[in-house]
Amino acid sequence: MPSLDLTTTSIDLTRQLCDIESVSGDEKVVADEIWAVLTAAPHLDLFRDGDAIVARTNLGRERRVVIAGHIDTVPINANVPTRYETIDDVEYLWGRGTVDMKGGCAVQLKLAVELSEPLVDVTWVWYDHEEVSDALNGLGRLSRVRPDLLAADFAILMEPSNASVEGGCNGNLRAEIRTFGLRSHSARSWLGDNAIHKAAPILDILAGYEAREVEVDGLVYREGLNAVGISGGVAGNVIPDEAMVHVNYRFAPSRSADEAVAHITELFGDFEVTIVDLAAGARPGLDAPLAQEFLAAVGGTAAPKYGWTDVARFSALGIPAVNYGPGDPQKAHADDERVAVREITECERGLRAWLTA
Amino acid sequence: MPSLDLTTTSIDLTRQLCDIESVSGDEKVVADEIWAVLTAAPHLDLFRDGDAIVARTNLGRERRVVIAGHIDTVPINANVPTRYETIDDVEYLWGRGTVDMKGGCAVQLKLAVELSEPLVDVTWVWYDHEEVSDALNGLGRLSRVRPDLLAADFAILMEPSNASVEGGCNGNLRAEIRTFGLRSHSARSWLGDNAIHKAAPILDILAGYEAREVEVDGLVYREGLNAVGISGGVAGNVIPDEAMVHVNYRFAPSRSADEAVAHITELFGDFEVTIVDLAAGARPGLDAPLAQEFLAAVGGTAAPKYGWTDVARFSALGIPAVNYGPGDPQKAHADDERVAVREITECERGLRAWLTA
Repeated sequence: MPSLDLTTTSIDLTRQLCDIESVSGDEKVVADEIWAVLTAAPHLDLFRDGDAIVARTNLGRERRVVIAGHIDTVPINANVPTRYETIDDVEYLWGRGTVDMKGGCAVQLKLAVELSEPLVDVTWVWYDHEEVSDALNGLGRLSRVRPDLLAADFAILMEPSNASVEGGCNGNLRAEIRTFGLRSHSARSWLGDNAIHKAAPILDILAGYEAREVEVDGLVYREGLNAVGISGGVAGNVIPDEAMVHVNYRFAPSRSADEAVAHITELFGDFEVTIVDLAAGARPGLDAPLAQEFLAAVGGTAAPKYGWTDVARFSALGIPAVNYGPGDPQKAHADDERVAVREITECERGLRAWLTA
Repeated sequence: MPSLDLTTTSIDLTRQLCDIESVSGDEKVVADEIWAVLTAAPHLDLFRDGDAIVARTNLGRERRVVIAGHIDTVPINANVPTRYETIDDVEYLWGRGTVDMKGGCAVQLKLAVELSEPLVDVTWVWYDHEEVSDALNGLGRLSRVRPDLLAADFAILMEPSNASVEGGCNGNLRAEIRTFGLRSHSARSWLGDNAIHKAAPILDILAGYEAREVEVDGLVYREGLNAVGISGGVAGNVIPDEAMVHVNYRFAPSRSADEAVAHITELFGDFEVTIVDLAAGARPGLDAPLAQEFLAAVGGTAAPKYGWTDVARFSALGIPAVNYGPGDPQKAHADDERVAVREITECERGLRAWLTA
């Protein structure tokens, strides 16, 4: 007997999913529970790889959509079990995973079981290890072991986006910019060559940088170039021979990963540049017919997604993809993570309307 | 029976002293050995406080000079026991303490015992805890518990100075200069305020700073203003809300400690400045008659001392003081610390000439 109760609301189902702790690497119990309720739905073909689950309708529809969400969370910080809170007359479900992203997972699960005849074929995906290193990501693993199962005309990732549609995502690059000098005793600093002083132009470039706003497929992406770390120094009486500025560049999806690297390499051409992280963005793909229909069904105005999400994986597979899920992304990972419960209901309504209208 | 053999050269006595390990806090054995040989010299009045030893002649001379050295070393790094080395025909004694500063201690010890009737009264001092925090310094402790024992017209500190006279010392100030901002996710950097970017003007000030050269009592002191450390950053995806530049200011002895603080506070007036270390310099005091006679006896030209030394303690007590000891200060604390043995002999000759001529 599955312990998840799907006869209740998607809000309550969110609470049930959150109260089963599933920090990255520890998703087995919640994956087993989801698997158990899916096996009771005869219209779904199931596949499981580790703790990633794929449930597909096979109705012979002309078009197929992937609707996906990750089941892992960042570590618990005394914020499980969940509770309901009302703040300024808004009702919230409080606790780890309520925003990122078991609200989306609950909506998927309820609709996957209830909608036996959606108007498009649907590939429902719940996956593991999204909050940790890229190499472990369950969606990435599925795309390598069973790419056929992810084939689709459109994809919706239920990452938190305040229950509105956020298209594509910015790319993400991190680089270490280094300067070098020569050590000496600081009482005789003229015998050395101060590497920290040499980092002044790096900070000047960053402080003076004007980040672009770039329109891509009708959405305006705002870029950002920032120092996220700086280090240097040997001891209080030593002229330092090395300094490092850790730079993070968020770039619009109109710019390729290679172009982003070229931009940073040119900007900091006088210094040693080491790229330590690089992920291309994703174009919003809102010109796809399915995307247009989806937008019309859920209502509201599409906005750009600034943070990098797994929509970029779909983009890399040639599948237009958007973010659409309950919860304020600024509350993701926060100790006071909480979702306005009406956004869970709204996402369920929007998806149900589109899949059955 | 004392184990130190004073019938040998001051070079060999240096070796004997170095081979008794005496890292700061562990000076008791070497202090006991020095004490033992001093008790055999009837012309000396002895005093001991912890591991600081004072040995005074009381010949009723018109003038009195302090000749002092510290008996502790920085930690051993597989460089004890000592050995003799010849490099490019120069003979060295290699090992921890050979430069900083048991060569000086050996010269003091040999002359203290041998010269029963110096031309000036001499207060010989060997003290502990010079290489660690100011609060533990044995010379500082003596100046608090028995200031009368340090009273003198002139002082010689046998810190390494290549066997030539180095007058006074620069002052030393360290400050932490901080900037503040507001954290945000780096995907939405415009919601934050980057504290590292705000540190750009600090590095610009440092990189553009022209350090002064200041003549004090005939010696030219070279100043220095340097970043010796920099830090900031929360995580690779967070706009940092704080950054800190650790600044070291070495200032000529014509500038008081308060004036040095005022200079730094004005220079970095736009930022939060926290003074974390402050020690006034010492004027060279070479205009004192005893200093002139000493200079004439040892020969050579006096130079300024750039590093801060305990001569500043004598200066604070109103006693003109100079550095004069065997060894290259750039080899102090180095793993390949080694003294050219001829400098030990030269310092013994110089002091002996002055005290007996």
